Amino acid sequence: MNEYPSLRGISDRQAEDLCQELRERVIDVVSQTGGHLASNLGAVELTVALHRVYDTGRDRLVFDVGHQCYIHKILTGRNGRMETLRTFGGIAGFPKPAESKHDACIAGHASTAVSTALGMAIARTRRGEDYRVVALLGDGSLTGGLAYEGLSMAGQSSEPLVVILNDNGMSIDASMGGIAQHLAKQRLKPPYLRGKEIYRKIMHATPPGRVLYRLIHKLKEGVKASILPCSMFENMGFHYMGPVDGHDVKALTRQLRYASQVNGPVLLHVKTVKGKGYGPAERNPDAFHGTGPFRKEDGAPLRPSQTETFSARFGKTLEAIAREDDRICAITAAMTSGTGLGGFAETFPRRFFDVGIAEEHAVSMAAGMAKQGLIPVFAVYSTFFQRSYDMLIHDIAIDSLHAVFCVDRAGLVGDDGETHHGLFDLGFLKTVPGLTVLCPASLDELSSMLETAVHKLTGPVAIRYPRGGENHYSQDNSGPAACLLREGTDLTLAAFGTLTGTMLRVAARLEQDGVSAEVVKFNQIIPLPTELVLDSLRKTGRLLMAQECVTMGSPGQDVLAAAAAAGISLRGTALCSCGEGFVPHGTIPQLRALCGLDEEALYHKAREVMRHGN
Amino acid sequence: MNEYPSLRGISDRQAEDLCQELRERVIDVVSQTGGHLASNLGAVELTVALHRVYDTGRDRLVFDVGHQCYIHKILTGRNGRMETLRTFGGIAGFPKPAESKHDACIAGHASTAVSTALGMAIARTRRGEDYRVVALLGDGSLTGGLAYEGLSMAGQSSEPLVVILNDNGMSIDASMGGIAQHLAKQRLKPPYLRGKEIYRKIMHATPPGRVLYRLIHKLKEGVKASILPCSMFENMGFHYMGPVDGHDVKALTRQLRYASQVNGPVLLHVKTVKGKGYGPAERNPDAFHGTGPFRKEDGAPLRPSQTETFSARFGKTLEAIAREDDRICAITAAMTSGTGLGGFAETFPRRFFDVGIAEEHAVSMAAGMAKQGLIPVFAVYSTFFQRSYDMLIHDIAIDSLHAVFCVDRAGLVGDDGETHHGLFDLGFLKTVPGLTVLCPASLDELSSMLETAVHKLTGPVAIRYPRGGENHYSQDNSGPAACLLREGTDLTLAAFGTLTGTMLRVAARLEQDGVSAEVVKFNQIIPLPTELVLDSLRKTGRLLMAQECVTMGSPGQDVLAAAAAAGISLRGTALCSCGEGFVPHGTIPQLRALCGLDEEALYHKAREVMRHGN
Repeated sequence: MNEYPSLRGISDRQAEDLCQELRERVIDVVSQTGGHLASNLGAVELTVALHRVYDTGRDRLVFDVGHQCYIHKILTGRNGRMETLRTFGGIAGFPKPAESKHDACIAGHASTAVSTALGMAIARTRRGEDYRVVALLGDGSLTGGLAYEGLSMAGQSSEPLVVILNDNGMSIDASMGGIAQHLAKQRLKPPYLRGKEIYRKIMHATPPGRVLYRLIHKLKEGVKASILPCSMFENMGFHYMGPVDGHDVKALTRQLRYASQVNGPVLLHVKTVKGKGYGPAERNPDAFHGTGPFRKEDGAPLRPSQTETFSARFGKTLEAIAREDDRICAITAAMTSGTGLGGFAETFPRRFFDVGIAEEHAVSMAAGMAKQGLIPVFAVYSTFFQRSYDMLIHDIAIDSLHAVFCVDRAGLVGDDGETHHGLFDLGFLKTVPGLTVLCPASLDELSSMLETAVHKLTGPVAIRYPRGGENHYSQDNSGPAACLLREGTDLTLAAFGTLTGTMLRVAARLEQDGVSAEVVKFNQIIPLPTELVLDSLRKTGRLLMAQECVTMGSPGQDVLAAAAAAGISLRGTALCSCGEGFVPHGTIPQLRALCGLDEEALYHKAREVMRHGN
Repeated sequence: MNEYPSLRGISDRQAEDLCQELRERVIDVVSQTGGHLASNLGAVELTVALHRVYDTGRDRLVFDVGHQCYIHKILTGRNGRMETLRTFGGIAGFPKPAESKHDACIAGHASTAVSTALGMAIARTRRGEDYRVVALLGDGSLTGGLAYEGLSMAGQSSEPLVVILNDNGMSIDASMGGIAQHLAKQRLKPPYLRGKEIYRKIMHATPPGRVLYRLIHKLKEGVKASILPCSMFENMGFHYMGPVDGHDVKALTRQLRYASQVNGPVLLHVKTVKGKGYGPAERNPDAFHGTGPFRKEDGAPLRPSQTETFSARFGKTLEAIAREDDRICAITAAMTSGTGLGGFAETFPRRFFDVGIAEEHAVSMAAGMAKQGLIPVFAVYSTFFQRSYDMLIHDIAIDSLHAVFCVDRAGLVGDDGETHHGLFDLGFLKTVPGLTVLCPASLDELSSMLETAVHKLTGPVAIRYPRGGENHYSQDNSGPAACLLREGTDLTLAAFGTLTGTMLRVAARLEQDGVSAEVVKFNQIIPLPTELVLDSLRKTGRLLMAQECVTMGSPGQDVLAAAAAAGISLRGTALCSCGEGFVPHGTIPQLRALCGLDEEALYHKAREVMRHGN
């Protein structure tokens, strides 16, 4: 596959042809590899225009979230490797500086781009350099408060900087400005402000008054419509440009050239269509936001998944519990279907709250709900829950409020890679006072634990479960905080979550070698119930613990610390985990093997613990 | 001191007299106890008006940050205890549900109120109840993205809810809307958009064109001014009311009554003067934001502090380093003087960035700066740094960027109490991959470590230091990652930071009892260098570690885990820390005693470890 030279000299006509070619290429690639299709199809012309105007090897193109970077990768020396997209050792699905100098920075979480771009623009100016900085935001990213913080400061900075708002209409109406319809609806509701009533009465008392009232009203509405969202960004200090048709590469290029010459912050508003140019994706952009491999002719998925996922089971169970208890509300931060809440949202639309990409707000709002007698259940991906840390401590924990956090995508998530693995939650949740964290190893355990979390426990509770479905374990032993799945005398194998099944297999293999392994399963991981495992360690003197999280702050460290405090002397120990926590993309089995968390690696580590003492 | 009955029946005249009385009362109290004065004086009429309209025992009054709650506390049964304000066992300086049913929720961190109030309003509506919900925000809180997330959703919610914007002009101009001056300044800068140039040229070609141009321009500017910030909040879905004079209790009461009757979200914009009614505070509101006890006649501080603080030393040292290295930039999140950066800001105005209450943005921006060759130094209070957790991992750590985080107010902070102690940083920072955390025990060590952090280390670095000045230790032993301050054979005493001096005193007392204690001091606490302490433990078999942080995820747990992994059998261990982390307000010596971290408690704990094995 050929690589593309610089686009800075090409004509409008050549650019149009190139867009066609790139669009086909992206459909080809993603139909084979899976990935984010709809957003990339929407950004074809925009990316080509960016590469006609900017030199991304020197100028800094800062993506937000960054899953719309495929065209950019194709244009910057990675076309030949696009078939490896999101596969182990292959091209990442997000911008990655380690992969290319054309990727200005990491971008897997939302709403960071303006802040980072502003930092870069400041550095450029301070160091007397002359490269240009451009940030590319989707409208969804505007729902996050961080974007607002960045825009506020960038607007006031007087730094030359171009912020492109790629508005595909998926969420801007619900977020920033432009909610005139809503405002209009509000106005119909009685009782309205008395002052306005009086004004209206006076104006309507005479025919000229009525005409005047209508004129003034029309003028006000007209002015409001014409300056929105323009005034929003202009008030922040931006030069507002647009909206421009995001599929007209000629117009886009011209506007970008203007924008790049302005000596101050510019916001360029670009309207695009998600899935543009591929029928199935245009018709159903949500299905093609993140997709598996599909048949190009009609977009039908090639390997439809049959397995029940933890997310699906969560949604189904919560719906069932909510039928019996009308205090239960569900909250998501722009992940309705990802967290399995689609059914709940349909069944209980008034008890379902999608807050946008605003994990901070989700928790502070849950605090208010809990304080006043509801039971809020916030389903959130582990990696994004990192944003809620302060609110968990300040808004929830100080007052011991009963809210339930369903931490989905905990552990390795696979092809989204290092920005998306859920490996930090156990470390930061451990420090939240009074928080109980449960971890199911099977779908049935998730159902039981959700019921326990909602109705039996008090204070804040979290349940941690992985992407996808069960591993080699489908029982329900969720009753006690910890339990013994297998007795043994030589070695204690400790685990929680879906690694439990792997540990049982390791124990079976060890038995064939004449090693008697005891298997301890934790159902509650914060605070960690250590009695059972300490009893086991007193007997065996050897520990192998497997955990899908970073080592620092892990439950395994708690076990070791508890053993030391109890004066237990250990002859052999091994904590198997995901190390410091940055694991690349690949399939989950590949990544478990990489981290030494698959059956083979754990078995060999167990043999090692048996061979060597300390 | 008499308590106040309900204000709901009083006349405007009575309300005015009451405001005068309350203003004097607050000045009286705070002149004796110290505390937040200027913001409370600005909120006297507003609080009285709120209590005339709302029943805060039933209606929910949600403060933001909440240090403007003194009048509210005086009016809700706590007048007689106001002399105990911010003292150990006394009235808290922030709203505290455990103290009174009139305090709707915890409020010590900024920008949370709208989110929490919205959660409460939703709960009210869902449960078919009829109490009212009102949130009270300062304009500073609007600089935080969380406020924007809350406002966006509240505006769209159609929930009856009143948000009061207490605008004392301290930061609104720099944050939300209303930055027309800035916009105007921007417009003077060449080159401006070509399209506008052309438009201007055409218009200016003829005399009637010039008149028309000026007219249109004036009209546009006029319209913009008249609808700001009105349009900003109306676009979000709020009924906007105001601005109203925040010191006219009659007008305020009337507006609040209207607002409370609207069947939807209302934003009431109130203009107040910080320090209103007390000359010294009106003239210098910053000095009276948080103040110690002062002489009522002229506002002169009663116990001016003579001790050099860690914050002051940090600011001075950074200024000195920055003189030699122009890559260094300083960032603060609305804490310029608190973090000791006042001097830096004056000396290097173009290298100093106050981002408002936006700790998330501060770190993402620092990432951009670091990526492009600057050395950003973000000085931030430990408790507020909790908000930066995700950005530390995602924006800084994945790319191993060299940024320096100066974590001030780490450990117990004293009279601000549980929302402000810096006890969680070690737990969450530990999980950030590649982050090095240093901890000075003396001012000179802070200076050395800052130089090391900026110029010798790579990747992300944090330095953790407490509020106030040195304890009983002023040497500089900061060279190695850990060092032995005293040799011994019976017991290992381990510490870091200002508890080091206390541990040396404990060791001296133990010597008189015939106990030979070895003192290990950690200079680097993440990752923890365990070699030296393990060598010591192999010798003594007993550990007492003192640490001003939560137990979970503490360095003490790392020591125990390392000992277990090394197969060291311990006969006695004690980790002394701040428990789960919610410690009330009081002086730092009182709180150390409460946590068992003063000399007396540590000495007795050491004796206990010597007496009892495991």
